[in-house]
Parts: sequence; C-alpha cells; structure tokens
Amino acid sequence: MESIHELLGYKNIKIVQNSEMFCFSLDSILLADFVNPKIGCKKIIDLGCGNAPIPLFLSLKTDAEITGVEIQKEVFELAVKSVRLNGLEAQIKIINSDIKDIYLKTGANVFDIVISNPPYFKVHPESNINKNKYLTIARHEVMINLEGVVLEAKKLLKNGGSFYLVHRTERLTETVNLLTENNFGIRRMRFVYPKRENNALLFLLEAGANLKDDVKVESPLYVYEEGEYSQEVKEIFNFKKNEYH
Amino acid sequence: MESIHELLGYKNIKIVQNSEMFCFSLDSILLADFVNPKIGCKKIIDLGCGNAPIPLFLSLKTDAEITGVEIQKEVFELAVKSVRLNGLEAQIKIINSDIKDIYLKTGANVFDIVISNPPYFKVHPESNINKNKYLTIARHEVMINLEGVVLEAKKLLKNGGSFYLVHRTERLTETVNLLTENNFGIRRMRFVYPKRENNALLFLLEAGANLKDDVKVESPLYVYEEGEYSQEVKEIFNFKKNEYH
Repeated sequence: MESIHELLGYKNIKIVQNSEMFCFSLDSILLADFVNPKIGCKKIIDLGCGNAPIPLFLSLKTDAEITGVEIQKEVFELAVKSVRLNGLEAQIKIINSDIKDIYLKTGANVFDIVISNPPYFKVHPESNINKNKYLTIARHEVMINLEGVVLEAKKLLKNGGSFYLVHRTERLTETVNLLTENNFGIRRMRFVYPKRENNALLFLLEAGANLKDDVKVESPLYVYEEGEYSQEVKEIFNFKKNEYH
Repeated sequence: MESIHELLGYKNIKIVQNSEMFCFSLDSILLADFVNPKIGCKKIIDLGCGNAPIPLFLSLKTDAEITGVEIQKEVFELAVKSVRLNGLEAQIKIINSDIKDIYLKTGANVFDIVISNPPYFKVHPESNINKNKYLTIARHEVMINLEGVVLEAKKLLKNGGSFYLVHRTERLTETVNLLTENNFGIRRMRFVYPKRENNALLFLLEAGANLKDDVKVESPLYVYEEGEYSQEVKEIFNFKKNEYH
C-alpha cells in the first residue's frame, strides 16, 4: 500500500513509501547524516537510491545537484513522486537505470561525492533470497556486487572526491581491500551498534579517490539506548543536530 | 629508577619497571584482556614482550606455556626479574632475541596464539624519534615493521591459530591489507576510544591463520568516563571481569 511519510524535521520533507515494495531504512538516514558535503561541492550521485531518502535528506544540507540512480521501475517511480511532492525537481534528478556503466549517461570523473547503501548480502546457491522481488534486488547482490559498486564509484568521482558507503561489518575486510586495490584512501569510519553492549552491525565509511589513506574512526553510534532510539538517532531524524543552511 | 609495581588484581602479580627505561602501557593490558585462550591452548608467544606485562597477565587465565621475546638486553632482564618475582618460571620463558626468524629457535607452526603490541610509528627521515633508545625501539619501526611482525606470526602459528594485535587506528587499512595478503581471516576487532566522544585511538584485533574472514566488531572500549578510568578499565586492572580458573 502506498503512503506518505514525513521523513525528517524542520523542512517538512515527505517521502512516498509502499509497504509491499519498498520502505527506506534507518541505514540510509544514518549514511545521509554521515555525508559531509564540503563548500564548493557541486555534484552528488546516489547509486541505488531506492525511494530517494538519501537525496531528500541531503537537500537539507547542500545546494549541490543530486542524482539518484534506481534500477527498479516501480521503485524509481516512488522516488520521482517523492521529489515532486517536495518540489525538489530543480535539485534532484532520478534516473531509472542500472548502476553499471552509469557514467556513460552522467559523465565520468564529474562527481564530488558518490554515495551508496548497496545490497548487503552475497548470493549463494543456498541464499535465503527474499520472495519479494523488490527487496531481493535491494538487499542481495543479484544485479551488482560490492566490487561493482566500488568500480563505478571510481569512474564517477573527481580526483580527491569522496565515496560514502554503509555496509555490514562482516564485509569490512573485503571493503577495505577493494578500496585499497582501487586506490581509495579511507578518511573516516564510524561503527553502528544496535545497543552499547552489542557487536557493531554496520559501518559508515568515507574514502577519497586517489588519496592517501588517513583513517579516523569516529565515536560509536548507538541506535537504541534504554529501550528507545538513542538521543543521537532522534536528533538525526528530527534533523536538529547541526545548523545546516 | 627500578621499582616494583603491583600489576593486577587478586593473584597479586608484580612487575619490575624502570622509569628511565621501560614501563608497561595500558595498551598491553587491554590487549592481554582481549586475548581469549581456548580450551586446549598449549603454547603462546608474545613478540616484543617488553617487561612482560602480557605474559604475566595471561598467566592468570591460562595454563599454556608462554614465551616472551624481547630484543633489548636490559628490558629482557626486567622481564626475567618479573617472572622470577612471581615464581612463574615454569610457565613463562623469556628469550632475548630479535623477533625476526624467532621460529628458528622456537619451531615453526607450533603456537596456538601469537600476540604483539608492536612499535606503532613508521620511521621517516623526519621522524621525531625518542631520544631514549629503549623507547625508540619499542615505539618506532627501527628493528621490525608491521609487515615483519605479520610475517613472523604466520610462520609461528598453527593452522587456525590466533594472531592478536593492538595498533593505532591510522594503521588499520594497512593492517587489514597485510592480514589478507598473508591469508589471515579477521575474527574479532574492538576499537579503543580515550573517551565516548573522541575518535578511536587504537584497535584490538584477533585474526586466524589460514582461516576465512568473519569479522565481529565488538562493543567499544572507553578508557575514561566522567574524568576517571571507566568501569571496564578498572575491572580489567583489578582483574575481576571474568571468572578465570
């Protein structure tokens, strides 16, 4: 069923969801919060944008042109509706396309920032694939795998541009190795813990294209504290954490 | 000046220090706490053991035979004194030797666990090397670098044995790459934050020799909370955290 959710705080951003098809995840919001567009940032692209939570969130903290790429027609349509609903057509453009070779449509080495909340799970013969086609493509590496996403990010970014990624901690070693092989230097990482006493489930990462590695591991992010969303997550949702323009 | 410190809790372990030469660091104690000798663990080696805080701490939680290797004669002598002072000569053996090719003395592929708190800093022409010779060798990669330590660990470990390391976060990418290249699979990581709101300064890591990667990132470790040692660090020092035999 299609419905409209208020995505975030004070600018009253709305997002079109479909509970049978695609709802945005907390992970996307945490990644969008982690993204830090510098002064002079002109072009941003989100690879696998779903119903566009990341582009919508980012419109609150940058004037850069934001492109979202979504392979699934019906999910792409949700994204387009959301952009229109918020009157953000001038800033956000959604493309219905495979991520692979997207640079042929957008241009290579033109983006300041590439973002991806990619499919998390490898596909094995015994994979427990979602029966829902939309979730299968969003969550499992059936259309593109992590290496594919890194390779496309490399093609899209300007020299020194930033690649932002959220992924599951069990893919950490593979991610670090792929970034090194493709000449990315890791700048920032942040681990996301469901609760203080849990193992981390996710990591957020910023890597620079053709830059030397200089890792900073930022303070941990807890999702829940004392049985409810942590103060930090509440602030991210209400978008009161920073003074954005 | 040489002095005797009470290292840790209930078994009343003592350690001989020399404030002009070598004092054990918190890092070593956090690493020793992170080490988890499994049932059946027979042989452990600590590469660059300093005045032996890690072997001494580990004697409280394992009956395995523990070897410490220390290249600096005077620091080696402190370690030997500490082992004697605690009457642990039957369990802990200290060797005065370079780490490089230590397997020629101990045997290759015989250890269940290899531990190292290695020199943290690369040596550059402009390095701010400690004037104190003992600290220079302990902290800077003048005698061996990280790759050297990983290569020796690989030679020393049994198949599936564990390599434990503490290092600074800015060396994280390099560490992950070196472990992958040498066929280690990362099992556990833990980041150490001076305070809740700081970036992590160190990571603790366990990797398995010739094992598939399966990373768990454990809950963050804070050193200070509210202006004093955190409860966890106090418990590690007092050695009350777990019920060891």
